[in-house]
Amino acid sequence: MIRLLLLLSLAGALGAQEITSKRLIEADREPHNWLTYARTYNAWRYSPLDKINRSNIQRLAPVWSFQTGDVEGGLQCTPLVADGVMYISTSWNRVYAIDAATGRKLWHYIYEKPKNLGVPFGPWNRGLALGYGLVFMGTLDNHLVALDAKTGREVWNVAIEDLAQCGCNITGAPLVVKDKVIVGVTGGEMAHRGYINAFDAKTGRHVWRFWTIPGPGEPGHETWEGDSWKFGGASTWMTGSYDPESNLVFWGVGNPAADFYGDDRKGANLYTDSVVALDADTGKLKWYYQQIPHDVWDWDSAYESVLLDLEHKGQKRKLLLNVNKGGYVFVVDRTDGKFVSAWPLVQNLNWIQGIDEQGRLIGRNEPALGKSSFICPSVGGGRSWNHGAYSPKTGWFYTTGIEWCQTVVPQKEEKVEGKQIMGGQFEFKPPPSGEAGGHLGAYDPITGKRHWIYRSKYPLLASALATGGDLVFTGDPEGEFFALDAATGKKLWSFMTGSGHRGSPVTYAVNGRQYIATPSGWGSALAGLLPQIWPEAEYFPSGSVIFAFALSEP
Amino acid sequence: MIRLLLLLSLAGALGAQEITSKRLIEADREPHNWLTYARTYNAWRYSPLDKINRSNIQRLAPVWSFQTGDVEGGLQCTPLVADGVMYISTSWNRVYAIDAATGRKLWHYIYEKPKNLGVPFGPWNRGLALGYGLVFMGTLDNHLVALDAKTGREVWNVAIEDLAQCGCNITGAPLVVKDKVIVGVTGGEMAHRGYINAFDAKTGRHVWRFWTIPGPGEPGHETWEGDSWKFGGASTWMTGSYDPESNLVFWGVGNPAADFYGDDRKGANLYTDSVVALDADTGKLKWYYQQIPHDVWDWDSAYESVLLDLEHKGQKRKLLLNVNKGGYVFVVDRTDGKFVSAWPLVQNLNWIQGIDEQGRLIGRNEPALGKSSFICPSVGGGRSWNHGAYSPKTGWFYTTGIEWCQTVVPQKEEKVEGKQIMGGQFEFKPPPSGEAGGHLGAYDPITGKRHWIYRSKYPLLASALATGGDLVFTGDPEGEFFALDAATGKKLWSFMTGSGHRGSPVTYAVNGRQYIATPSGWGSALAGLLPQIWPEAEYFPSGSVIFAFALSEP
Repeated sequence: MIRLLLLLSLAGALGAQEITSKRLIEADREPHNWLTYARTYNAWRYSPLDKINRSNIQRLAPVWSFQTGDVEGGLQCTPLVADGVMYISTSWNRVYAIDAATGRKLWHYIYEKPKNLGVPFGPWNRGLALGYGLVFMGTLDNHLVALDAKTGREVWNVAIEDLAQCGCNITGAPLVVKDKVIVGVTGGEMAHRGYINAFDAKTGRHVWRFWTIPGPGEPGHETWEGDSWKFGGASTWMTGSYDPESNLVFWGVGNPAADFYGDDRKGANLYTDSVVALDADTGKLKWYYQQIPHDVWDWDSAYESVLLDLEHKGQKRKLLLNVNKGGYVFVVDRTDGKFVSAWPLVQNLNWIQGIDEQGRLIGRNEPALGKSSFICPSVGGGRSWNHGAYSPKTGWFYTTGIEWCQTVVPQKEEKVEGKQIMGGQFEFKPPPSGEAGGHLGAYDPITGKRHWIYRSKYPLLASALATGGDLVFTGDPEGEFFALDAATGKKLWSFMTGSGHRGSPVTYAVNGRQYIATPSGWGSALAGLLPQIWPEAEYFPSGSVIFAFALSEP
Repeated sequence: MIRLLLLLSLAGALGAQEITSKRLIEADREPHNWLTYARTYNAWRYSPLDKINRSNIQRLAPVWSFQTGDVEGGLQCTPLVADGVMYISTSWNRVYAIDAATGRKLWHYIYEKPKNLGVPFGPWNRGLALGYGLVFMGTLDNHLVALDAKTGREVWNVAIEDLAQCGCNITGAPLVVKDKVIVGVTGGEMAHRGYINAFDAKTGRHVWRFWTIPGPGEPGHETWEGDSWKFGGASTWMTGSYDPESNLVFWGVGNPAADFYGDDRKGANLYTDSVVALDADTGKLKWYYQQIPHDVWDWDSAYESVLLDLEHKGQKRKLLLNVNKGGYVFVVDRTDGKFVSAWPLVQNLNWIQGIDEQGRLIGRNEPALGKSSFICPSVGGGRSWNHGAYSPKTGWFYTTGIEWCQTVVPQKEEKVEGKQIMGGQFEFKPPPSGEAGGHLGAYDPITGKRHWIYRSKYPLLASALATGGDLVFTGDPEGEFFALDAATGKKLWSFMTGSGHRGSPVTYAVNGRQYIATPSGWGSALAGLLPQIWPEAEYFPSGSVIFAFALSEP
């Protein structure tokens, strides 16, 4: 008990300063911390820390590991770090606070999951949010909980919607904006109507809800045939960005349901496959940009929205870059949602022939009902959700991409509220010419001009991290965690962690020492599909470990 | 497929030389390898490798990790290393071959366990044996299997006894001796008659069985009252030693059943709590030494038998040191089993007052039927099975010990063949004076003179490793893996692996580079009992990772 108290007081001392809205807005001024999902509201996943750099990375070695034991479903989180304390979430909604310098556990929180929890896909969780002395997590039964950051004690716990009713849950990290916690929901493959919710951070009181499918009488409702709007998916399963200047939250919206069969939901199906810009205080829609009207390929726009202030055609522009699951990257003006550019992330892409200068899709290749179509990329995505990183030093966007295809057979399925409705069957296939595989590239964010590409045998399904040390980190499905030269893509360093990478690496500092930390733990629905192309992937070892690296003494 | 073939041929190249009986007998001449459970037949757990030593250990850092994902029950194995290939076993009888320099998996083997497998305690496995191109493992359903060392393919698989019948299984590592594989069995808490079996290594043909309880007409049968010999336990759950000179195998035998209630089995209960010396070719008993006649405390003698050639009282002696679970270390002459010395490993020990110069127990403190007695150490042991190490450089034996006690209430229970029969209930308690805790000490093997002691808050439940670099390695239940100065016990280095240590670290070399490797993964029956004294131990994280360490470049 004495020891427990000591640990608690240590946790208190380490994470002593409250994380305010001001700190979150100015998160970039705290290079030693990683306070929010993508470190900064602009979703860059970049840290200016540069003590670990190209000249000394050969001395990078593990300094501690933290094993969670929660190996089911992969370790998919982004660790958060605040003033020497690391916070991670694992499968089954467990949360751990760890001394970020030593790897010693400070506290843990085990969510008491309801009995007979019917989880649509798997038990993973992708991350937490911090603010006001609390740690926020969405749960597998669609609750939002707030924990005391110093003790792990549950402070509040609010139910959003009954899992049995909606077939949806929360796996994405919440986003704290000002005095609110904003959180999305899964359910893109379910007969469900999606939404984004905001709660008062201190009390858990519900503040606003934005329905990602307009209801009767609302603009856009006419883009859904009949009652299809009630069951159209439009999930919001990842984490949005925030622009304090305009007070807008940008959130990506997933595919319409049924995924591959669209005849029951004729119309553009707003706001599926769109980025929506919402007023952070009210949740009111400011603008939207729909990348793919009437999606019949299961191409979510739910991934990160990277906020960039760049010069384009001689003008300073406030831009938003969003990676679509279909393998195209869309860039829009984030003040009004107007199209700027789109560029393909993968070579194997045949669901359209191209995108015109107004952002319109050219030559849609829609799979026909009951027939087998060969579509590239596969429904696993031209990229999975794992995030890219933007370095202001190079001005380049670093992101993974996957070369693979599939056969898909659309089917009409019975629609039952809260039940899965994929609208077809698929099977992953290698591309017709060349090998299936993954890559990580460095791209001009507006034009997509590729500066270099690092190719890997298997899809890279972990996020990228870019640092001021001119390094880009990510990991592979076999367990290798590695660093590339941000300028050339040359592999400079690697460490075999022994289980595949599916989460998001971060960097931080404690007492002036820079650390790189990565989750390592293979799993996820997509990981389970890899054997369709690579049979040996069935036996990639699972695991659940955080590795922290630092420079060994010279 | 091409990759698979490459891996297989790599495995073939790495582990190319067949492991013969000659190589096993002369295992000490291969400093780069760890060919058998304790590296050498004398159970020293010592390697002469000295490139990692007191002067440079600050540069020791992880170079790879291997996650097994098999987190249930703890990672309890001793990794074996043969010519660049590491072989490990995990819970549920999985086997992995790993490139010992890079941590890349070469092959895996998943034992197809029978449905409805009723495992008496847990799914762990403590290790493998190598020989003749094969990898040997005992299974949870009491089979012995042989795998092709180059591919992991099952070559033979023999059933020993039906688990449902015996309530016993195999968790200990087999021992290859000459052309045979010798293996023990669990079942000390079961109404079962124990044995040791030998099989032909190449074919799996059964060669001999030694019953650890003498049958009718055999010497020692009279030490069991009535039919108690049929159900007396006498398990052989750990791994023995071998002396090529005398061709004797030395194997420790566990407690009699029922553990705490002995009135149904009056007599000395041979060969429980004994070390038996068997002819390796025939399994015939050469001698035995019973440490504890008629045990009523559950004090196994099943732990390691360390073979030592030492001068004692002016004479060169061939000795055998065996650590009894009751906290006493017994030393006998290994040519005839005659008592030489005994010394206590722990301070808190009240089940006897002492041991006289003939090895007789003085002042037995037997718990009384139906009454609560306070006994030290606890049934967890003055030490658990995790092994000590002997360094020929210092001449000292390094072993852990535990200071803890228990209340125990003996009870008469119904005896049902193959079912558990503990004969009482226990609850762990701190010692009456002073704190419960663990330690690792350096002892004169014959006199028990303590040269130093390193104390730890929690019991140390991992084996010790002694090296030519004058280092002693072990790990703690919270996940710290550390090295002590073999001469002084000073802690020189540590690394937090993030899950507790319950297995056995080893050292080896590939291409001239020395590695230290340790299993890290908390679990086991005993781990589950720690919260009786340390409530926080309920939340020590589980895991299952091999960490390999080497010196970073200077």
